[in-house]
Amino acid sequence: MSMVWQVYLAGEIHTQWRAEITGLSETLGVNAAFCSPITDHQLSDDIGQHITGAEQKAFWNDFKSARLNQARNKVLLEKSDIVVVRFGEQYRQWNSAFDAGYAVAHGKQLISWHDESLNHALKEIDAAAITVVNDVDQVVKALTYICK
Amino acid sequence: MSMVWQVYLAGEIHTQWRAEITGLSETLGVNAAFCSPITDHQLSDDIGQHITGAEQKAFWNDFKSARLNQARNKVLLEKSDIVVVRFGEQYRQWNSAFDAGYAVAHGKQLISWHDESLNHALKEIDAAAITVVNDVDQVVKALTYICK
Amino acid sequence: MSMVWQVYLAGEIHTQWRAEITGLSETLGVNAAFCSPITDHQLSDDIGQHITGAEQKAFWNDFKSARLNQARNKVLLEKSDIVVVRFGEQYRQWNSAFDAGYAVAHGKQLISWHDESLNHALKEIDAAAITVVNDVDQVVKALTYICK
Amino acid sequence: MSMVWQVYLAGEIHTQWRAEITGLSETLGVNAAFCSPITDHQLSDDIGQHITGAEQKAFWNDFKSARLNQARNKVLLEKSDIVVVRFGEQYRQWNSAFDAGYAVAHGKQLISWHDESLNHALKEIDAAAITVVNDVDQVVKALTYICK
Amino acid sequence: MSMVWQVYLAGEIHTQWRAEITGLSETLGVNAAFCSPITDHQLSDDIGQHITGAEQKAFWNDFKSARLNQARNKVLLEKSDIVVVRFGEQYRQWNSAFDAGYAVAHGKQLISWHDESLNHALKEIDAAAITVVNDVDQVVKALTYICK
Amino acid sequence: MSMVWQVYLAGEIHTQWRAEITGLSETLGVNAAFCSPITDHQLSDDIGQHITGAEQKAFWNDFKSARLNQARNKVLLEKSDIVVVRFGEQYRQWNSAFDAGYAVAHGKQLISWHDESLNHALKEIDAAAITVVNDVDQVVKALTYICK
Amino acid sequence: MSMVWQVYLAGEIHTQWRAEITGLSETLGVNAAFCSPITDHQLSDDIGQHITGAEQKAFWNDFKSARLNQARNKVLLEKSDIVVVRFGEQYRQWNSAFDAGYAVAHGKQLISWHDESLNHALKEIDAAAITVVNDVDQVVKALTYICK
Amino acid sequence: MSMVWQVYLAGEIHTQWRAEITGLSETLGVNAAFCSPITDHQLSDDIGQHITGAEQKAFWNDFKSARLNQARNKVLLEKSDIVVVRFGEQYRQWNSAFDAGYAVAHGKQLISWHDESLNHALKEIDAAAITVVNDVDQVVKALTYICK
Repeated sequence: MSMVWQVYLAGEIHTQWRAEITGLSETLGVNAAFCSPITDHQLSDDIGQHITGAEQKAFWNDFKSARLNQARNKVLLEKSDIVVVRFGEQYRQWNSAFDAGYAVAHGKQLISWHDESLNHALKEIDAAAITVVNDVDQVVKALTYICK
Repeated sequence: MSMVWQVYLAGEIHTQWRAEITGLSETLGVNAAFCSPITDHQLSDDIGQHITGAEQKAFWNDFKSARLNQARNKVLLEKSDIVVVRFGEQYRQWNSAFDAGYAVAHGKQLISWHDESLNHALKEIDAAAITVVNDVDQVVKALTYICK
Repeated sequence: MSMVWQVYLAGEIHTQWRAEITGLSETLGVNAAFCSPITDHQLSDDIGQHITGAEQKAFWNDFKSARLNQARNKVLLEKSDIVVVRFGEQYRQWNSAFDAGYAVAHGKQLISWHDESLNHALKEIDAAAITVVNDVDQVVKALTYICK
Repeated sequence: MSMVWQVYLAGEIHTQWRAEITGLSETLGVNAAFCSPITDHQLSDDIGQHITGAEQKAFWNDFKSARLNQARNKVLLEKSDIVVVRFGEQYRQWNSAFDAGYAVAHGKQLISWHDESLNHALKEIDAAAITVVNDVDQVVKALTYICK
Repeated sequence: MSMVWQVYLAGEIHTQWRAEITGLSETLGVNAAFCSPITDHQLSDDIGQHITGAEQKAFWNDFKSARLNQARNKVLLEKSDIVVVRFGEQYRQWNSAFDAGYAVAHGKQLISWHDESLNHALKEIDAAAITVVNDVDQVVKALTYICK
Repeated sequence: MSMVWQVYLAGEIHTQWRAEITGLSETLGVNAAFCSPITDHQLSDDIGQHITGAEQKAFWNDFKSARLNQARNKVLLEKSDIVVVRFGEQYRQWNSAFDAGYAVAHGKQLISWHDESLNHALKEIDAAAITVVNDVDQVVKALTYICK
Repeated sequence: MSMVWQVYLAGEIHTQWRAEITGLSETLGVNAAFCSPITDHQLSDDIGQHITGAEQKAFWNDFKSARLNQARNKVLLEKSDIVVVRFGEQYRQWNSAFDAGYAVAHGKQLISWHDESLNHALKEIDAAAITVVNDVDQVVKALTYICK
Repeated sequence: MSMVWQVYLAGEIHTQWRAEITGLSETLGVNAAFCSPITDHQLSDDIGQHITGAEQKAFWNDFKSARLNQARNKVLLEKSDIVVVRFGEQYRQWNSAFDAGYAVAHGKQLISWHDESLNHALKEIDAAAITVVNDVDQVVKALTYICK
């Protein structure tokens, strides 16, 4: 089967972890194509009011942007084979956990990436993952193996 | 249709918010039955090793408990009509966000309960919710209306 | 099979057509249980602000109420076997048409009730219906036959 | 992921709004392919009798055409990622609302386009939409963002 | 599990084969509840015009009745665990074969009952059946075993 | 959307009706690709024993061949958008009716082709079809319209 | 939610392990109802020929019985919440592994019970299980916890 | 329809049976593409610890590897049209049986290949297969016929 594996990179958009994965994957010739949420943080926060104008209440501005981001993410998640979810120390990243739950319910294969210090807090997400890894090398090793 | 609405109460298990909802609902005669994850915190953390023995690594102890809790929660979430998810200020509650994503992917109706201070951090989950509320009265008002 | 057939009554909530169906069905002993959207028009318009407060923009007040009503209706539609949708001359009833599309996509059996004058305007909905009827007697005759 | 987003343009076929969207999208290089119901109004009304002959009753002529149109639309809707639904002031467009309900039930991302004057009448459909817009620029802005 | 098995009896409605099955099953205490299409042949042919009036063309009279019968049968088939389909020598019973295909696509367990003389003509339906039987005793033996 | 519509041609394999459809469709540039069951009648009857040897009982020879044919047909039916089913005067074609039921249960768009003399006998299948036609020109007209 | 959890006990039918589980569960008041394949080994092997007569080839006798057993098991597995699968040292129990795969694909919660000596051989099934246990006490402890 | 049939080759990875199938298929021009689990036995056993380090208990090493293999296999099984499962005399191959159950639950067409000596032990899996074959020629004959 000459498929290219589709990999969704879920999680925080403050650091450059996605580029690490795609860069290393390209170097190693991993048989995968990557997609992700919009990673322009400011744009993803403001897209709602950018399209249909600002709301008085911050809640509705957030809501409008989140609806658009969620629409995009749902479509991409549903078309993926594998979802890598990255949790950092600094952020609450509830949307990452939400995406992980959404992906698992759709039968996607979940790879959970975080520091060991988060093991206990993330145990439910790890329990749904096919592997729990701690660095980019491990992520790409897993993709290299699965996406053959 | 003489159905009783099934309501799953997802979220942190450190405070008594579930009893507030079920108590007020009973008082008001809301047409709903409630279920929830195991709320005995210690037991839910230790159930894995309680059944099959302790592991050397904390990771596997967590993993074993989480697998059992997740199994229970998935069955209950899939049988529910409505999922109320509660986020507190103090906890990361990634499992609550995960459950919310899982529930939405299964077409469940989500009610998101948290303080306004969390509005921005929870905007993706709020965007998937049918209503975003700030206290127990609002939760029960929503249930009273929907579960007629 | 000793089932009671579940019938959802979709459509305008300005006239008493639901009571006509349920009354005649009861008289004739039709083997069906009925459910419907919230038919208290004012309440269904205001439920959003009733629960979480009034918004400045009418749009968000409408939105909040509609989200709650839709949540309720989706659950009931998905649990139904038959959906009767009623279109009157005076109202646009886009929500009724939306519910009909939602019901058909979920494989529900649709009965379309309207005056002949609306035949052309409603032809797409009629084309998805198992029967197109013009009065309450015809609705109940159809239910009597199907729900045996 | 090198996907082209599939966008279904549902709604009235009396005005040239589809050409506005596709034209502007092409100009801006939006990563989307568009499809729509048959927009030749006369043909879409007469296709039934064109194929299998005229019926005596207008109802059956309408029915036969609508069955064919619906078949085509269902297949295209199910293959789409995003559905833009357009409501004009002048038409009842129950079929557009029906298509919107059908699309939402299949998990499609709905963009609702109409004048603000229709906000209240369309609140249930807007409540199911990922964004509610008022002109072609807003539609294309939303597509530009989502279909990256 | 204290379930009662639901059994749909599909096939011709000219002979009394259903009463044979239900009678013998009752005698033997088979743990099953039975349902079937409307077996009043004249009524099932005429129900369409009985409800909404006679059409000029026989085709539309047939069509209207068949739509109603199909609606009923689909709901019952989807709620069944087992479908017994009976083919007689004298009838074409394309609707029985249609129901069998519909049931198999929904994952129902199919029991095919016909004389050996029809083996070759019915080989595709037999190939989808869990057993192919030739008389009422064999049907009820199979139900007795499965529905324990 | 630059899709090619997938059309499955179900029904008897004794006459050349498939070549009529595909030939005329090619001439007219219909945007469709066609597939069908194996139309080599002898081969399709004997394939079971051709692969794993003859059985003593004709029933098992039929069964083995039918299992293989059904496997092929199921995959193709599930990948199709439209299913044309052809009933001739001379054959019982229960497998065609079975395929029609299977296709409808999978949400496929059904075109039913037969002489008017079979209208009453085929009314259930016609009631599930998007159009009922009597000759090859009508089939291709319908495909020309839908597959645009 | 006042549900009783449905538990399917898959695996070998040569020893009395099912009675151990159900007995201990009853003693401890576990909130579960149990079902299983037919455990009368001789009958389950012979049911095919018992109903429709003996075949000359053992293969078809086996086949006929297995078709009936599989039909029963599929229905019960699909209605279950939890599947306990038991592997013993002495038997190949490919049908147990098949049932486990079938259950997991349907989203059932799998409990895998076997001696530690089989850990390596059963690693794929264990990897799909929510817990891997070694004796009846552990099974019932897990059920006690989950089925609250 | 110009599809290439996707065939998954499940089963033991100790002998060269896959190369026999793909080689003969290529020679004969069978219209199929093949995929399989990772067939490097040592690597597939060790991949878990290769990525995230060795565990003290062999169970967790097995578990980590099996999770990764299962993830890969599930994705490939779900994308396949046909699954060939091979059982040899020497191995328990519970994972092969598990994969077969998983595939059947997803509606895949199963070809079961094993020696006649295993007929009785494998009767449940054979009962779910579209054909049961004994050598590579028979497998490829079946593929040649189905994948036309």
